[in-house]
Amino acid sequence: MNYKDYIAIVEDFPIKGISFKDITPLLSNGEVFKSITQELAAYAKKVGATVIVGPESRGFIFGCPVAVDLGLSFAPIRKPGKLPRETVSKEYSLEYGTNTLCMHADAVKKGDKVLIIDDLLATGGTIGAAVELISSLGAEVVGCAFVIELTELKGRQKLSGIDVFALTQYPY
Amino acid sequence: MNYKDYIAIVEDFPIKGISFKDITPLLSNGEVFKSITQELAAYAKKVGATVIVGPESRGFIFGCPVAVDLGLSFAPIRKPGKLPRETVSKEYSLEYGTNTLCMHADAVKKGDKVLIIDDLLATGGTIGAAVELISSLGAEVVGCAFVIELTELKGRQKLSGIDVFALTQYPY
Repeated sequence: MNYKDYIAIVEDFPIKGISFKDITPLLSNGEVFKSITQELAAYAKKVGATVIVGPESRGFIFGCPVAVDLGLSFAPIRKPGKLPRETVSKEYSLEYGTNTLCMHADAVKKGDKVLIIDDLLATGGTIGAAVELISSLGAEVVGCAFVIELTELKGRQKLSGIDVFALTQYPY
Repeated sequence: MNYKDYIAIVEDFPIKGISFKDITPLLSNGEVFKSITQELAAYAKKVGATVIVGPESRGFIFGCPVAVDLGLSFAPIRKPGKLPRETVSKEYSLEYGTNTLCMHADAVKKGDKVLIIDDLLATGGTIGAAVELISSLGAEVVGCAFVIELTELKGRQKLSGIDVFALTQYPY
């Protein structure tokens, strides 16, 4: 299945110079959404994941169906002020702007083998911060899986030592 | 399965007087998350849904696995500035504060039978606005399904004429 047929490219969104990859057409086709889930779930099995982690909010879209499909737990990474119990947090730089990630302090623990799932790997800022958060709680990141990788932004380099899987690649 | 065993009550979050229902423990147990998905999917079949719609971002957590399980399409409802193509929008009042909902103008269409899935039914402000958005695009809302209903906030009254399903109920 050629997923690129279902990714809409929107130029200059959210700011000039960004060639935005709109994943909503992937979701509007039930067969395509299921196929993506199956491919990500096969990867999760291959790396032996026991927990799926996804960053708010497109990481929820792709990560949650994989967790349910495999009967695994899902731990959300959220923006500040959203998680009500004790959290750990990490500030990081985005492709455009900055952000802070939070997880519940009991979201993952030593012995967990975590697969991070998100829609897009760009510079790797978000995912690098997610890896640090997860590691700070004692869990092991066994892989990172994306629907889209922007290869020229070299996010893989920021994730050196971690297995990276992407369903589609664009230069930027 | 008693889902209430996996819902954490956090008092005075995000503001004083709110008894926040934390759904993250439901997700940290893979069996529980799968069971929720199966119950919501059974309801989706019963009402004949052809499209699942979920509001950002906890609606993604519960709605996307149901869409994938049934091979249906999923259409996200998002906050302003997130959807890159032509949108329709609706402002509404929350339990605390105000908000604006947006959908892509092509997210749903005439003939679609839409099930809205979200984590929580409180006053019905969010879901009432979602119903208006979906109806304005010509689609039919065949049901609304929630993990939690706060019965004393009388959200069902705001959704009169629409079938409402909730997995758990609390007074407020």
